[in-house]
Amino acid sequence: MSSDAPKREFEPGSVGLVETRYFNFAQPPGELTLECGKKLGPVTLAYETYGKLSPEKDNAVLVLTALSGDAHAAGYHADDDKPGWWDVMIGPGKGIDTDRYFVICSNVIGGCMGSTGPSSVNPETKKPYGLSFPIVTIRDMVETQRLLIDHLGISVLHAVIGGSMGGMQVLQWAVSYPDRVRLALPVATTGRLSAQAIAFDEVGRQAIMADPDWKGGDYAGTEGPRRGLAIARMVGHITYLSEQSMHQKFGRRLQDRAEYGYGFVPDFEVENYLRYKGDAFVKRFDANSYLYISKAMDYFDISRPTGSLRAAFVGVKSKFLVISFSSDWLFPSAQSRELAQALRLNDAEVVYTEIKTDYGHDAFLLESGELSAIIGNYLAFARDGGDRKGT
Amino acid sequence: MSSDAPKREFEPGSVGLVETRYFNFAQPPGELTLECGKKLGPVTLAYETYGKLSPEKDNAVLVLTALSGDAHAAGYHADDDKPGWWDVMIGPGKGIDTDRYFVICSNVIGGCMGSTGPSSVNPETKKPYGLSFPIVTIRDMVETQRLLIDHLGISVLHAVIGGSMGGMQVLQWAVSYPDRVRLALPVATTGRLSAQAIAFDEVGRQAIMADPDWKGGDYAGTEGPRRGLAIARMVGHITYLSEQSMHQKFGRRLQDRAEYGYGFVPDFEVENYLRYKGDAFVKRFDANSYLYISKAMDYFDISRPTGSLRAAFVGVKSKFLVISFSSDWLFPSAQSRELAQALRLNDAEVVYTEIKTDYGHDAFLLESGELSAIIGNYLAFARDGGDRKGT
Repeated sequence: MSSDAPKREFEPGSVGLVETRYFNFAQPPGELTLECGKKLGPVTLAYETYGKLSPEKDNAVLVLTALSGDAHAAGYHADDDKPGWWDVMIGPGKGIDTDRYFVICSNVIGGCMGSTGPSSVNPETKKPYGLSFPIVTIRDMVETQRLLIDHLGISVLHAVIGGSMGGMQVLQWAVSYPDRVRLALPVATTGRLSAQAIAFDEVGRQAIMADPDWKGGDYAGTEGPRRGLAIARMVGHITYLSEQSMHQKFGRRLQDRAEYGYGFVPDFEVENYLRYKGDAFVKRFDANSYLYISKAMDYFDISRPTGSLRAAFVGVKSKFLVISFSSDWLFPSAQSRELAQALRLNDAEVVYTEIKTDYGHDAFLLESGELSAIIGNYLAFARDGGDRKGT
Repeated sequence: MSSDAPKREFEPGSVGLVETRYFNFAQPPGELTLECGKKLGPVTLAYETYGKLSPEKDNAVLVLTALSGDAHAAGYHADDDKPGWWDVMIGPGKGIDTDRYFVICSNVIGGCMGSTGPSSVNPETKKPYGLSFPIVTIRDMVETQRLLIDHLGISVLHAVIGGSMGGMQVLQWAVSYPDRVRLALPVATTGRLSAQAIAFDEVGRQAIMADPDWKGGDYAGTEGPRRGLAIARMVGHITYLSEQSMHQKFGRRLQDRAEYGYGFVPDFEVENYLRYKGDAFVKRFDANSYLYISKAMDYFDISRPTGSLRAAFVGVKSKFLVISFSSDWLFPSAQSRELAQALRLNDAEVVYTEIKTDYGHDAFLLESGELSAIIGNYLAFARDGGDRKGT
């Protein structure tokens, strides 16, 4: 940018202009061996960082994403109207304070926002992988993040934090790398996806795969299964909200009309809103990535290798702040309490907090003074050497 | 059947062999004027009856159906392996005791089980209506049932009873015909469908309409939108169960395998179960009927004409037994309590009972000694002149 260009101004608390970077590893003949047993390479991870890494490299906070999150968690790209997906939480003076912490966020493997995924080109065939992309798991996501952290020269993360699928990665980090995570903050998550959540994921996948434009996954160069992906997002979106928040936000209000339409066009605001959400998602997300990432969530069961949650957490050394939301019915508070209990049975230091809110699962993404304050205080308290047993 | 044929034996408590009958009304030039303002005719209602109408014609119980229920509520057709959909409730000595009551059940208008609906032939075009079928509402369903009751020579129904959409019809009966309903038993229902439930219905409709085999509704003579309808049923079915019941029934158990399949075939029992449920539904249900009946549920708002639930029930004369299920999150107990409260504000005699169960919304269809006992006692108590104010 020329020095004559007008300098863009950002609101207070913003990290300002940011760029996505790319970390390439496991170049051929090197390859990443995945949990499914298959090999994948080369692999790229898209990532962003905010704030400055301290000389001691002891202030890094790794932010982990939910299903559709990308590396762009905060600030603005040059062409952005809206900031990154967790800008409410990350910035100078915010919950994850970039004046104190060096924040890292990457797009997951299997994704479609710059990291290697099913829409990437398979170097062997020179064509997009499609369904020939191997199944990736939460553990694989964490493994690639670990390589990124190594690359950045960081031995110990001050904290790993994430909501929903991000929380699954938090748990996997704490289990896989107990010596490299000081604080673990799993938010609105679970140690193993419930049957109900698997069922909703399967409906979404069926909707995508039933769309003839999916073409068995080989839709590269075409518009792809837009209707199927929109339906998958619609059903997902309902599960991210609560009955209360939908009632408050929409109720039975009609869309642009005083009377029922008596037809199959949308009558209710909630129908219009869902269609809008579905269509907006299709513009920014790849249908095959939806299949892969939802499957990774379904497969997530931190207790599977050992047979119980309690045994899964043998050897963890991090301190934990477990957060759930009272109206989250996709990852209900009971599942967070179960996590906290299993951690305590391993003598982990655990704080568990349920935040009262009507916003459902999506509460972790929304502006919330309460969530920011709880996270900010915990990060600072624990950093300053505070020590406490969970409430 | 020849008298030489072996006599089929039925289990104790069964109403035995039954047949569906057909009531034709509003023959041309007579027509039914629907709530949407359009006219429809001729109209057929498929219905069944069990038990004997008393000489005083004062023992009739009208059973009202949920979305996919048909007229065949109890007993066996000649070719049936399984009995009708509410056989656990209807029969000699059962909750709705056919030794005491004359039970009537009809398939709703808009349905596909013998009553006039979008798959019926339009007499003007000699082709199936498809989307040229007019939108029908819960009030229209009740209006056609009222004509059937007239036809059967019954002035006053001892009781109207139904779960889910059947409960909506119960409420509409009590409001539209206060002098013709002695006891009203709305089960697992609501006075107005919630935004969340509308949203799930819309997802189902979108899945059907996105299926190219739907062909704008003109799929008669073809297999129709099988995948879309199966997806609609899958999402619906999840909402009929509870998180607890899915956990107990399936948990994270794998289907016919010890290890993850690492692909997009079903891994989990719950996925297989949903696919089975979806496919089974496609064999017995018409996709356009699904569109019409789900829309009728969305439009249901007993408070709409007056602006409030309390005002909606001005003038009701029936006694009410309102029943909800503790784990029903599609029609939560709070909505039943709201109904009971609005009825009491109109001095109606109301008993409200919440049944503790993990079975979710579908609890009303399942074998339950408790539900049968509560309904049986209420029908008998109120019939014998008992009088009580709600708990």
